[in-house]
Amino acid sequence: MIRVGVVGATGYTAFEAIRLINRHPQATVTAVTSRKDVGTPISDVHRALTGQLDLSLSLADPQQLGADCDVVLCCLPHAASAETVRALSEQDLRVIDLSADFRLRSAAVYERWYATEHPWPERLGEVAYGLPELFAEEIADARLVANPGCYPTSAILPLAPLLKAGVIETDIIVDSKSGVSGAGRTPKLANLYCEANESIAAYSVGKHRHQPEVVDVLDRFAGVQTDVLFTPHLTPMDRGILSTIYVQGRELDAQRVKQLWQEAYAEAPFLHVVDSPPATKHVSGTNHVHMTAIDAGKRVVLLSVLDNVVKGASGAAVQNMNCMFGLDQTLGLGA
Amino acid sequence: MIRVGVVGATGYTAFEAIRLINRHPQATVTAVTSRKDVGTPISDVHRALTGQLDLSLSLADPQQLGADCDVVLCCLPHAASAETVRALSEQDLRVIDLSADFRLRSAAVYERWYATEHPWPERLGEVAYGLPELFAEEIADARLVANPGCYPTSAILPLAPLLKAGVIETDIIVDSKSGVSGAGRTPKLANLYCEANESIAAYSVGKHRHQPEVVDVLDRFAGVQTDVLFTPHLTPMDRGILSTIYVQGRELDAQRVKQLWQEAYAEAPFLHVVDSPPATKHVSGTNHVHMTAIDAGKRVVLLSVLDNVVKGASGAAVQNMNCMFGLDQTLGLGA
Amino acid sequence: MIRVGVVGATGYTAFEAIRLINRHPQATVTAVTSRKDVGTPISDVHRALTGQLDLSLSLADPQQLGADCDVVLCCLPHAASAETVRALSEQDLRVIDLSADFRLRSAAVYERWYATEHPWPERLGEVAYGLPELFAEEIADARLVANPGCYPTSAILPLAPLLKAGVIETDIIVDSKSGVSGAGRTPKLANLYCEANESIAAYSVGKHRHQPEVVDVLDRFAGVQTDVLFTPHLTPMDRGILSTIYVQGRELDAQRVKQLWQEAYAEAPFLHVVDSPPATKHVSGTNHVHMTAIDAGKRVVLLSVLDNVVKGASGAAVQNMNCMFGLDQTLGLGA
Amino acid sequence: MIRVGVVGATGYTAFEAIRLINRHPQATVTAVTSRKDVGTPISDVHRALTGQLDLSLSLADPQQLGADCDVVLCCLPHAASAETVRALSEQDLRVIDLSADFRLRSAAVYERWYATEHPWPERLGEVAYGLPELFAEEIADARLVANPGCYPTSAILPLAPLLKAGVIETDIIVDSKSGVSGAGRTPKLANLYCEANESIAAYSVGKHRHQPEVVDVLDRFAGVQTDVLFTPHLTPMDRGILSTIYVQGRELDAQRVKQLWQEAYAEAPFLHVVDSPPATKHVSGTNHVHMTAIDAGKRVVLLSVLDNVVKGASGAAVQNMNCMFGLDQTLGLGA
Repeated sequence: MIRVGVVGATGYTAFEAIRLINRHPQATVTAVTSRKDVGTPISDVHRALTGQLDLSLSLADPQQLGADCDVVLCCLPHAASAETVRALSEQDLRVIDLSADFRLRSAAVYERWYATEHPWPERLGEVAYGLPELFAEEIADARLVANPGCYPTSAILPLAPLLKAGVIETDIIVDSKSGVSGAGRTPKLANLYCEANESIAAYSVGKHRHQPEVVDVLDRFAGVQTDVLFTPHLTPMDRGILSTIYVQGRELDAQRVKQLWQEAYAEAPFLHVVDSPPATKHVSGTNHVHMTAIDAGKRVVLLSVLDNVVKGASGAAVQNMNCMFGLDQTLGLGA
Repeated sequence: MIRVGVVGATGYTAFEAIRLINRHPQATVTAVTSRKDVGTPISDVHRALTGQLDLSLSLADPQQLGADCDVVLCCLPHAASAETVRALSEQDLRVIDLSADFRLRSAAVYERWYATEHPWPERLGEVAYGLPELFAEEIADARLVANPGCYPTSAILPLAPLLKAGVIETDIIVDSKSGVSGAGRTPKLANLYCEANESIAAYSVGKHRHQPEVVDVLDRFAGVQTDVLFTPHLTPMDRGILSTIYVQGRELDAQRVKQLWQEAYAEAPFLHVVDSPPATKHVSGTNHVHMTAIDAGKRVVLLSVLDNVVKGASGAAVQNMNCMFGLDQTLGLGA
Repeated sequence: MIRVGVVGATGYTAFEAIRLINRHPQATVTAVTSRKDVGTPISDVHRALTGQLDLSLSLADPQQLGADCDVVLCCLPHAASAETVRALSEQDLRVIDLSADFRLRSAAVYERWYATEHPWPERLGEVAYGLPELFAEEIADARLVANPGCYPTSAILPLAPLLKAGVIETDIIVDSKSGVSGAGRTPKLANLYCEANESIAAYSVGKHRHQPEVVDVLDRFAGVQTDVLFTPHLTPMDRGILSTIYVQGRELDAQRVKQLWQEAYAEAPFLHVVDSPPATKHVSGTNHVHMTAIDAGKRVVLLSVLDNVVKGASGAAVQNMNCMFGLDQTLGLGA
Repeated sequence: MIRVGVVGATGYTAFEAIRLINRHPQATVTAVTSRKDVGTPISDVHRALTGQLDLSLSLADPQQLGADCDVVLCCLPHAASAETVRALSEQDLRVIDLSADFRLRSAAVYERWYATEHPWPERLGEVAYGLPELFAEEIADARLVANPGCYPTSAILPLAPLLKAGVIETDIIVDSKSGVSGAGRTPKLANLYCEANESIAAYSVGKHRHQPEVVDVLDRFAGVQTDVLFTPHLTPMDRGILSTIYVQGRELDAQRVKQLWQEAYAEAPFLHVVDSPPATKHVSGTNHVHMTAIDAGKRVVLLSVLDNVVKGASGAAVQNMNCMFGLDQTLGLGA
């Protein structure tokens, strides 16, 4: 059994991670930590865990985690996460960091977009990016994996093979719609039910932190510098991301796009090319991604859907864990 | 034009009050106050008011309000509200208090249920209760009106004529379902979108503060001491209250109930007896109440629906204002 | 009093039209028609009208409508609508057609996109397009007004002044998100609660019938042939449209866009230029449109929100009616 | 591997059954049938099954099902279901019937409430009722199991031990709130998104078909004839049932209720007694039931929550299948 610690266990991604590990046939949660509510049973924080996990919140003590865990899923906010990851690096365990701290390769880019100094800049540049569909080998060997952002996963997976094949221009528009769970569990006015319900709005237009992540990872994979315009929208639903992506290319059509995807992702168990526009509900609660491409005048419209809390966060973390421990990618993640 | 001040203008009921006054042909909002965000345009706080009201938040200054307003709608939390109402009582204006502070007739009952001393206990007992369907004359003469609670309105209106007629027993179960706006606009975990959405739960079972309000007002109107068991439920919708009320009485049936309602509310423009179960959506955004009664074994089930922010709060306040100023009850409240 | 007939009165837009006319100080509904359920009280079809309108459904008889009405709002499906409008043209009344039948100027384009012969092609080309913000004079004089599509309104209003001023390129992407009421009230699998709830999906990508409408009206107003790529999305909410529009132009920035809007719409009572991304909830239940522009790299992102059932349908119809009868545009439509 | 056939595979419960069997380590779906859409891949009907199950819809042929399956889950409407079950009874397989056809013991009661002749009345009275928490032994031996109704499960589980212990009176009120999936996948006006969303309403007050089911099963288990008043409510959410149950008894309090539950359900892996009001979200997507009891005057209020599509339908079916095949009850159903 792989012993899993969940650091920062009170939020939505941590809950989903615990739920998934609970179902995993070869892994078990052995520690849950938090700065607040130390001593509180985790099932009081996440009542869906009633009777499912008999652990209480503790402070994140690196040595203790080193003794109790084979792998830690770090679900802290950015900056705080890198500090904890650094402390954990002395221990004999692996880390999957669900924050943004190790996704970008450049400390300068990080500091520009996150408006804070990076706590461990020298570690950047050599961290595996946790998309097994693109970086399986690096992940298998890694002691630290940067779990991707939810929006970037929905944009990078459709775009990467097309850029690698050189069939699309680098001027790309990504118009994404996300459920409210992406905003986290901290009480804020904008996330109140009566604010978010029955309403849709764009936010952080052209300046969301996931924009440089998409650009950096596409460059890392395909060696192409793209000009991505990213517009996220807060959508009245718990979970799900739909990205509507506008691309164009000489002699490109939807059929060619799908063919390239089929080739690139022939071995990817969670990626499915479909023939009509996918809905986020089709993948809700699962680690799957549905993608299609549609001809529209001189452009091709790419559509991808995923569950932001699963494939966009904790499901990807479990998938990465499976890769790191030599297991089948799909173990514990449904069929 | 009636000049209206809205004290505590940043919440949902205040917004709805402003929206309704904006539509009212003989009233206009002249002051909006708040302890926070003084100087901020009200349309920044409630963006739906963009271009609709050119006022900024000020501190609630009794003298200034006395100069600027003919009536003040007080939308403060309990206890704070009574203090402000007391300060305003020196001024030449009328007050409609949307808090719970003047709804009960007894300071002792208030202090038991609200766990705080009443700031102006000697004023209790002689305040008009703002249900014009039951207390129109008192309201017309009042300088201070206690605007009813949302749940109590949904329970009192169906029950009052039946108790007055002596046809039901005093052992009554009120099972109510409310939209999330009833919980207010202050960020709290339970009111986050991802907590409240796709979920229903009971809360404050048998100990919600609206339970004694129902009992006190029914006694006041019908002279009967009832034993009401009240169970509120948080329902995943913005607005609306449905109360499912279980009563029984010798030789009582649904037809007799409807007949008593028709007689009692013949002149009530907002009350409608319907023939099949009403949905909260049928009255959403309006000041109307739909009620029906259905035979079920030895009991009769009463169903009432209203919009908790309109008839359950700000619409009732405007209706009360109309009564206090000698206008038609329906003015500014749709047909 | 303007006597208003509502033809095809059982759907959502008809309900909203009746609700608005009920509030209008100088108009009253005098006839409601339907092919089905003749004789049924309209308040049984739309239970929110209980006690608000004492009319029953009748068959649409042109002569009777001519006797009873000064204006008819035609809420029928396309093709059926044009036939009825043609029959009504003999009568002494005006018509506002809420279908798509008279929005396009060319029968050939209509027949290509709607896959049916136009029932009255010779009438096309001279019908006023019901956006008073752009075509007020034509509407004032018209006997027949084509009420705009909901999506087109959200796209045309932000784009028209920019194209007129020649500051944007004609290659335009419109990514729109609509509430489910836009799909109508006919039971279909895709519109079931459990299909649409907690899910978002694109549909009719690049081939929605509102795409040629946007192109035709922009040409009509600005004399420019645009290349619009339009992607609609079904969003889990009752009402509201958000359009996210991607444009670019030499030396164009967001500030210039807002300035052009301020100039073009200085006299438009329902259009509001705001400073941060608007949410559909800000205009829910109203006839208002909120718009903003944001710089994003070489592009400017335009955002517009409206209520698809009000400004996108029945509110626009009332606004058009006001124009046609020489009344203030805002009468009966709130402030 | 247990080979499972799903008859009537196009609805929501069938989808959930397939999803659960797909995750089950010792079962696999080998047939999916429907009267419509024969030949259509099941993943076209339920797009969430894309890549998860490579089967197409066939007509339900008893002999073929006998050859292909060890057990059939019958997801047909009532009456149709009994006919199919009868035809399947010749085959060497077991049947779990998710319809209401074999839940009641009396054909006369069935015919009164379902307004149709029972197709196989002589089979009634000896069919195991599929609540393993109460009838585990009967289920283990059964060739035919009647899967319980969703509402009845939420009412019977809290009530059964209390009636058995003789601590509550037989006059019981069950006020239940259900998500919309309970209404099925057939397009009907009432289940349209824009009808059900943002609204709650009671229906079938005192005459819902699940009322006699509750009474019959409680009698069967506890030997007590109860007088249950059952009021279901349609709640704006996909899934979940909350039952608020009003009981009373001499010297009864909440603590005693919980104690009786703890004793009765000590071995029940899916039942959890909790200390504060449970929300349907706490059990969403799972086979768990959370229950609590709260003192309220002379009554005790019982609260139970479950997922109507899982523990209320397909999860219970899998739990029953596990019992019938000698497996651990929880296999394939999460922890």
